[in-house]
Amino acid sequence: MRAEIITIGDELLIGQVVDTNSAWMAEQLNVYGIELYQITSVHDSREHILMALNEAFSRADIVLTTGGLGPTKDDITKQVLCEYFGTHLIEDTRVRAHINQLYKERPDVLNRLTATQWLVPESAEILENRVGSAPLMVFHHGKQLLAAMPGVPYEMKIAMEEQILPYIGHTTASILHKTLQVTGIPESSLAILLEEYEQSMPASLHLAYLPKDGIIRLRLSAYGDLSEAEVQQWFERLKMLVSGYMIAETDEPLEVIVGRLLKERHQTISTAESCTGGKLASLLNKHAGSSEFYYGSIISYDNSVKEHLLGVPEEVIQTHGVVSEEVVRVMAESVRKRLNTDFSIATSGIAGPSGGSETKPVGTVWIAWATPNGTCAECFHLGKLREQITDRACTKALVKMIELLKK
Amino acid sequence: MRAEIITIGDELLIGQVVDTNSAWMAEQLNVYGIELYQITSVHDSREHILMALNEAFSRADIVLTTGGLGPTKDDITKQVLCEYFGTHLIEDTRVRAHINQLYKERPDVLNRLTATQWLVPESAEILENRVGSAPLMVFHHGKQLLAAMPGVPYEMKIAMEEQILPYIGHTTASILHKTLQVTGIPESSLAILLEEYEQSMPASLHLAYLPKDGIIRLRLSAYGDLSEAEVQQWFERLKMLVSGYMIAETDEPLEVIVGRLLKERHQTISTAESCTGGKLASLLNKHAGSSEFYYGSIISYDNSVKEHLLGVPEEVIQTHGVVSEEVVRVMAESVRKRLNTDFSIATSGIAGPSGGSETKPVGTVWIAWATPNGTCAECFHLGKLREQITDRACTKALVKMIELLKK
Repeated sequence: MRAEIITIGDELLIGQVVDTNSAWMAEQLNVYGIELYQITSVHDSREHILMALNEAFSRADIVLTTGGLGPTKDDITKQVLCEYFGTHLIEDTRVRAHINQLYKERPDVLNRLTATQWLVPESAEILENRVGSAPLMVFHHGKQLLAAMPGVPYEMKIAMEEQILPYIGHTTASILHKTLQVTGIPESSLAILLEEYEQSMPASLHLAYLPKDGIIRLRLSAYGDLSEAEVQQWFERLKMLVSGYMIAETDEPLEVIVGRLLKERHQTISTAESCTGGKLASLLNKHAGSSEFYYGSIISYDNSVKEHLLGVPEEVIQTHGVVSEEVVRVMAESVRKRLNTDFSIATSGIAGPSGGSETKPVGTVWIAWATPNGTCAECFHLGKLREQITDRACTKALVKMIELLKK
Repeated sequence: MRAEIITIGDELLIGQVVDTNSAWMAEQLNVYGIELYQITSVHDSREHILMALNEAFSRADIVLTTGGLGPTKDDITKQVLCEYFGTHLIEDTRVRAHINQLYKERPDVLNRLTATQWLVPESAEILENRVGSAPLMVFHHGKQLLAAMPGVPYEMKIAMEEQILPYIGHTTASILHKTLQVTGIPESSLAILLEEYEQSMPASLHLAYLPKDGIIRLRLSAYGDLSEAEVQQWFERLKMLVSGYMIAETDEPLEVIVGRLLKERHQTISTAESCTGGKLASLLNKHAGSSEFYYGSIISYDNSVKEHLLGVPEEVIQTHGVVSEEVVRVMAESVRKRLNTDFSIATSGIAGPSGGSETKPVGTVWIAWATPNGTCAECFHLGKLREQITDRACTKALVKMIELLKK
């Protein structure tokens, strides 16, 4: 079973909005055993949407569209779908009741334009959008089908999870992906290490290399005729080959692995951040259940905060500079003690664009890890771009933390 | 001049990677006056790439591809481009020298597979990729052109900024976008307010509504025959019509507006975060120059941190609960005092999925703002999903901060 996604909206094509919907939908489709063939982003334009529909239906069994279902004039998806499927809009009393219920405490929303939301294409099946006013529509096109959803990410997610995916149903065809993560080896060297392995793989297996921020994710994908046990055997062989570099046997984000290891040990963590400025904290508490192991952080962007809240002596900053082993060690030990956690991580670096020097250029980052068995620190050079530097610093901090926790 | 983007990589179609490149490229193309017509994401598959090239060249003057240029077996873009343009790979001594230079301190990278990176299509013009080993390639196809770039975001960005965009050059056609941001009015009511305005607009003007996290961005786009002064007049009329709800006259992110207002006043800010867990801090220091106004934060995820570092008395937490006006007020005032800043923002809420109760369901968030003229606090109900709740809390915190700074 093959699907395509069409995302509709001018905002995507002038770069005002990043399309995060497609990746999430792709992941869900995969779990259901549905291959996503193509993602196409098009304008809020009749001709463009019609062309994309024609192309997608020439290749796929299922077409999913997002966007263009709002009550305003720029949103035209519903009208264009009516034209494509040769139908017209009629009032749906169930949708009308739902919208009245949805906005019963906000009578200001119940106006003439909102009323256009309960007009639906006559030939479409209407599924409930429990969190918004745009109805979810399913059209049948011979054996093919199209489902249209709003583009607002959380509305789309609830629609997919509660309505569209159960409607489509699991397929019997299996697509299996198994991913592990390695670090400390260049991509090309890794490929040479795995050359024989790749050459011996059957045609229905595929190995992909996904490098990011110093981590390479290796994804083994099986399309079709191999059993799960056979795929697992190939994955075990892969794990053995890269064991010296492997940081995780799954595709879990690093902060999830750190959280899991801490929870298993009933241990806790805090951070003291300068250059990463709270990014590491947000990662550690991003996922549900983080209050079990994450206590808090001191973000000491200004030196006065390093001195007063983290007790970094002014003379240490004067002598060694604020980006130095001495400073991050005090930061880490101090936050661990003050927040009373088992572990802590501290960062101090030059994220740029200004602030660099010959001996400490932009991209220089010191990280320290304080543990029940002492403190260690490392210096990294993480590139030239602000966002890249802070992202990579978080990755380095988490990779080492995993190593320390696994010891 | 019309462009299309083809992003190449299985990782996009199984949802392992979010395509952030396209939005960034779209924005840059727009600045250069180039209309982006479509974004297409395809597999690392010969047939699929060839089909996408054919379709894109049937519509666009410029085709930009990202991805599939690594040294490993799964990356095939270069080979497929050779086939499409009827050329073959030859060694490029300049690229070879560049790669040798790039990795001179990492001889482990200079292996047999890296050597395939200095093989380039004979008919392509090769531009320098100063930060990576994959050469940038430009192919001419009659009057059309194709530029191929790596998919690694920061390599792509440097390639676009330093090589591809200057190569393409500015066009004379103008696409003008002007955006403002409003809050406190439903999308449909806004559309009714602007109905006459929209009906009176010339055909070459287009108004789009982009709602997100309680903010609606209104984007006025002019394609073609209007002068900049005329577009500005339309924009001024729009501003007047929505003046009661307008939070910004630009598309700047809210945290940039807060930073600008603080810098203008030589004032500073800190945060004390519970449910937002550092997200607000990372926003405030995300952009270059933030050290001028942002001092630091105390992330008090655990109650012990609220008590010890922010001096929230245990009995206040016991009496009112940790998500309460009393607690956020103490948090805000305490962090403002301890970090010695002019302003501060504090958040405490139930991000879920657990922790909700009948009186304080998941999504309840208290926010306080401490200022030189006193402290205020507000309670919000921000939905049901963890990420949505913390994102919206940051938006609410920043919107109010802008209002307070503008007073």
